[in-house]
Amino acid sequence: MKVKDLIILLGGHVFKGILSRDYSTILRISSVLRKLRDLDIKMAIVTGGSDTARIYIDAIRSMGGDNYTQDYAGILATRLHAMVIMSSLGSLAYPKVVESYEDAAIAIAMNKIPVAGGMQPGQSTDAVAALMAEKLGFYFIAKMTGVDGVYDKDPRLYPDAKKLENLTYDELEKIVASKPYHPGTYELLDALSIKILRRSSISTIILSGDKPEALLDLIEGKDVGSVIRPG
Amino acid sequence: MKVKDLIILLGGHVFKGILSRDYSTILRISSVLRKLRDLDIKMAIVTGGSDTARIYIDAIRSMGGDNYTQDYAGILATRLHAMVIMSSLGSLAYPKVVESYEDAAIAIAMNKIPVAGGMQPGQSTDAVAALMAEKLGFYFIAKMTGVDGVYDKDPRLYPDAKKLENLTYDELEKIVASKPYHPGTYELLDALSIKILRRSSISTIILSGDKPEALLDLIEGKDVGSVIRPG
Amino acid sequence: MKVKDLIILLGGHVFKGILSRDYSTILRISSVLRKLRDLDIKMAIVTGGSDTARIYIDAIRSMGGDNYTQDYAGILATRLHAMVIMSSLGSLAYPKVVESYEDAAIAIAMNKIPVAGGMQPGQSTDAVAALMAEKLGFYFIAKMTGVDGVYDKDPRLYPDAKKLENLTYDELEKIVASKPYHPGTYELLDALSIKILRRSSISTIILSGDKPEALLDLIEGKDVGSVIRPG
Amino acid sequence: MKVKDLIILLGGHVFKGILSRDYSTILRISSVLRKLRDLDIKMAIVTGGSDTARIYIDAIRSMGGDNYTQDYAGILATRLHAMVIMSSLGSLAYPKVVESYEDAAIAIAMNKIPVAGGMQPGQSTDAVAALMAEKLGFYFIAKMTGVDGVYDKDPRLYPDAKKLENLTYDELEKIVASKPYHPGTYELLDALSIKILRRSSISTIILSGDKPEALLDLIEGKDVGSVIRPG
Amino acid sequence: MKVKDLIILLGGHVFKGILSRDYSTILRISSVLRKLRDLDIKMAIVTGGSDTARIYIDAIRSMGGDNYTQDYAGILATRLHAMVIMSSLGSLAYPKVVESYEDAAIAIAMNKIPVAGGMQPGQSTDAVAALMAEKLGFYFIAKMTGVDGVYDKDPRLYPDAKKLENLTYDELEKIVASKPYHPGTYELLDALSIKILRRSSISTIILSGDKPEALLDLIEGKDVGSVIRPG
Amino acid sequence: MKVKDLIILLGGHVFKGILSRDYSTILRISSVLRKLRDLDIKMAIVTGGSDTARIYIDAIRSMGGDNYTQDYAGILATRLHAMVIMSSLGSLAYPKVVESYEDAAIAIAMNKIPVAGGMQPGQSTDAVAALMAEKLGFYFIAKMTGVDGVYDKDPRLYPDAKKLENLTYDELEKIVASKPYHPGTYELLDALSIKILRRSSISTIILSGDKPEALLDLIEGKDVGSVIRPG
Repeated sequence: MKVKDLIILLGGHVFKGILSRDYSTILRISSVLRKLRDLDIKMAIVTGGSDTARIYIDAIRSMGGDNYTQDYAGILATRLHAMVIMSSLGSLAYPKVVESYEDAAIAIAMNKIPVAGGMQPGQSTDAVAALMAEKLGFYFIAKMTGVDGVYDKDPRLYPDAKKLENLTYDELEKIVASKPYHPGTYELLDALSIKILRRSSISTIILSGDKPEALLDLIEGKDVGSVIRPG
Repeated sequence: MKVKDLIILLGGHVFKGILSRDYSTILRISSVLRKLRDLDIKMAIVTGGSDTARIYIDAIRSMGGDNYTQDYAGILATRLHAMVIMSSLGSLAYPKVVESYEDAAIAIAMNKIPVAGGMQPGQSTDAVAALMAEKLGFYFIAKMTGVDGVYDKDPRLYPDAKKLENLTYDELEKIVASKPYHPGTYELLDALSIKILRRSSISTIILSGDKPEALLDLIEGKDVGSVIRPG
Repeated sequence: MKVKDLIILLGGHVFKGILSRDYSTILRISSVLRKLRDLDIKMAIVTGGSDTARIYIDAIRSMGGDNYTQDYAGILATRLHAMVIMSSLGSLAYPKVVESYEDAAIAIAMNKIPVAGGMQPGQSTDAVAALMAEKLGFYFIAKMTGVDGVYDKDPRLYPDAKKLENLTYDELEKIVASKPYHPGTYELLDALSIKILRRSSISTIILSGDKPEALLDLIEGKDVGSVIRPG
Repeated sequence: MKVKDLIILLGGHVFKGILSRDYSTILRISSVLRKLRDLDIKMAIVTGGSDTARIYIDAIRSMGGDNYTQDYAGILATRLHAMVIMSSLGSLAYPKVVESYEDAAIAIAMNKIPVAGGMQPGQSTDAVAALMAEKLGFYFIAKMTGVDGVYDKDPRLYPDAKKLENLTYDELEKIVASKPYHPGTYELLDALSIKILRRSSISTIILSGDKPEALLDLIEGKDVGSVIRPG
Repeated sequence: MKVKDLIILLGGHVFKGILSRDYSTILRISSVLRKLRDLDIKMAIVTGGSDTARIYIDAIRSMGGDNYTQDYAGILATRLHAMVIMSSLGSLAYPKVVESYEDAAIAIAMNKIPVAGGMQPGQSTDAVAALMAEKLGFYFIAKMTGVDGVYDKDPRLYPDAKKLENLTYDELEKIVASKPYHPGTYELLDALSIKILRRSSISTIILSGDKPEALLDLIEGKDVGSVIRPG
Repeated sequence: MKVKDLIILLGGHVFKGILSRDYSTILRISSVLRKLRDLDIKMAIVTGGSDTARIYIDAIRSMGGDNYTQDYAGILATRLHAMVIMSSLGSLAYPKVVESYEDAAIAIAMNKIPVAGGMQPGQSTDAVAALMAEKLGFYFIAKMTGVDGVYDKDPRLYPDAKKLENLTYDELEKIVASKPYHPGTYELLDALSIKILRRSSISTIILSGDKPEALLDLIEGKDVGSVIRPG
């Protein structure tokens, strides 16, 4: 598989150290991103929300705030993470947090890296990554998350769970719907995102946020993580 | 002193419980704000940043981000707090976080409570409160913070520090500049804010964020906290 | 069931006459909306796209345009329909097509009827109606579409199909997934919308766009169409 | 005449096939635009509205909508056409429909082709092309329309009408005002546009939308269509 | 003639004293506007540019700036005048300078007076007033300018010039086109404005900016200035 | 001292000729800016307000307008000056007046010169220059003003006043606070600006607006004006 231009989706897992001021994961990711850039890879970055999102969503819910407003607070939290990544990239990054897909395309046209968080209530950052891939004409999303791939059973419960190196979105949906998973605890990609990824033939590669160097292997054509294809 | 329409500035202190999911202070403040509303007080609210702001500012600095971007992250943190307060006020609040002084004035014209966080890098939420008072034509700012007034010496260092019930901005500047204070540790109002407050004859009342009920006393004409007047 | 404030979702079906300059359906709907207003019902309107959307989506696809841009053209088409409805409401409507949920809330606060089309690529007008209900704190969506309710089988294929007057979102999902339906031909509500409707306990009433007077019956508490409840 | 940088104004005539899904004219124009680009011609594109505009303007008028709103619907229709052209140009085009003259200038500075529809109620797309030429510092507008030039009499009524290869804006105004034309039926350029074109010494070349290849001849210096000069 | 809701267009003449700090005319106008408000007249205000506009247009032209940019500077000048009028109206005015017709309509819905300057290069403030009347559904524009009405000849050149109390837009065009006027020196309404005024049946009343009290007479039904009707 | 990328702050003094249509100073500055550009200097320009600002601030105050609105009018005046400078730079300048620091950074990324006036009420153009330097990562501001440097006493009052070629912000503050100055008449940099300049280690060079050629000397490494360093 030849991956070139891609969306890099940094899940909340990547930012888990921030509240305790541990920036080691982010620094390693930032270093990998700079190397990708040196290899002339075109990329756009989407950042997730993690604990900060959860804390404010909880506060707003406790105050009686509606789900729309809760989502919106989650978006602000993802934008804080976008600013952290933007800062780590210095002048390589587009100089403002991207708040529309059109702005992401303008950034790419200026040879800058667009960095976005969430965009709209009701929409996950997975969906943002998928729509951004559509708008930019990219065919790959690398999702950096808490597991290093898709497993046939929940790897946190079954020691014999087997990683699937290649699968389709259809297969992913069957696995997630099947018994060995606790529903809701292991949603790698939500339904809206899969719908968009399928309609535009975009593949997703699941990688561990703790091993960002795998992104370099991916670009070199090595098999890493799990690749989910349109079918 | 007859206080009617006012800006209520909720310092970071008020939000210190959020990261540990302790919403008691916010709930008490929210209850007071609703009572003020029942008394037909026109008000606008400005929220500070606290730990969340400091955490992200630190992360961005550690990534090499500039001071402008650090300030901007602080502003996003204050807006998260604005959303918490907005949610606690339900339909009394203007339905989006206010990001311009003009929007605040439109909210007031619609008989809704505008809630804002920071506005611009390089500008404290004190300055936001001062400019908003100018734009709305209000003559009072109640600042809810970690101390219950202005003291002649730093009350955290000197047990015999005396609270000043009435003073002018000139006197405030002299106290802050004088020896018994560790510079920078006790800045109740920054220089830009004082300049604006003075030019538009706006008084500031310093109250403890832990005793929000004092706001009701203030409206009833009782002496609470410290009142700083233009002179 | 006591329905008061509600979102009225005018599906593409309602606008099917526009290309042939037949405005009879729209005029009847407009007359019903004015009557609802006289009854002091708070409402917001979301308009679908129909043929105009399909024509431009097809043109853009034929030119090599991506799915994101196709969706965006669909949104412009829905906004043309929003302008038609807005015009039919005269000064009862908010004076610009609503392009954010916050603007819808501002319209309601001003006692005007917000009229929106689509908002974001990747998101149906069903999802717009659901998010708007969340933001406005409304618990009902009346969807005016090409059928007068939910049937246990596809009514266009099975003459013995039975209308279900009451069902849950769970039941709706089972019916749609079951054999007697040609998948995709009868999607009354998409997955993202159902997720939002469920999390915020919003009910949807399916009504025929050809009998808009049913909206008045609904408000009077009569049983009309099919009511889908959170469960 | 040496034409280099230019505004290409695609009149509604060019889009007449869209409602019947006939894209042949647009495909030929798109192919010519790509060739112009290969010749290093700087260009900006403005698209007209055609039937879609007329249909929605009629619907809005029938609903009691004012002329301002009718114009606005016409603008949305022209933006649908802008998206069609944008899609046909792929990454050569600026990635969002241009909604301000400043954005057009930014697109040019980024070496992308700006594509705009209408801008403001009360203003034709001719006027948009004229103002865009001013802002971009271009001296030529090529208007692709339903006739292949300016005639001394209405060519649809008089078989002996003669095409004028060169004329001034003064002469154009005299012809249009003279008897052999049915007033209003043959307005090649409106009064506001001519005023702008004159004050900034911009020439207009009238070409047939059915023969887009004439644009290539124009760039090569050949005499095509009718050239209207400031005088 | 019964004039109720109206656009008040304050021509540049009204602001001629500003550069020499003579505010007498503006103060008188402001006092009249407040009285109109007391009479429950709905109104919107459009301000012209005068010397300040001319000075900056000249500076920009001298620097090589294009006509578009010159117009834009003129618009900023008119907005300075809008701020002066807004300030004179205090809380009666919408709290920001209106930059879109939709905002003007929102202001009216909030029972505030919208104040606008220019909107777009290529468009006079006459055209702004005309489009605003369309959007707001108003049928009258009162233009306060340097003359107290329309004359059959240029009153500055011909002592026997006669004021016309009633005329149509057709008649106005004939007078302006006729010999006794120096073309360009006495353009009471430009061609674009007349086109809009005609299509929406809006009347214009020409009044002297030096006698703003005539506005009160107008509302009382007295004959003042010159009334130009659609015909 | 090696100055490369810099903010050029054109104080109101530079624009003092505009009201009397004397453009000589601006033309000389423009010529210097073009030479700097030929030397591959990256720069951003901030323009002050001068008499035009003062005139409108006075008018608004006289009408009862608040200080916020007065400041805002001052900002519009600085933007008129930004348009004059922008026009003098032709296609070297970013094609719209910069109204956010992010836009300034985008301009730099596109290799265009951003030109801004004021940004926010309550904030001087000095502060704008300081924040822009932060956002762009520049370490120098050249302020072109009415004096050619910092003096130990007010040079307009004391013939023996001595120019200081090098000083720190601390020293500047002491001089300004000391007796020989009339407070307020000689504020070279306000408190907010100095705070920002210090926190980001940005130096300011004070130059005479009447000798813009000194900017070329500065770039060549010569000692000109007064250099104020963070310390």
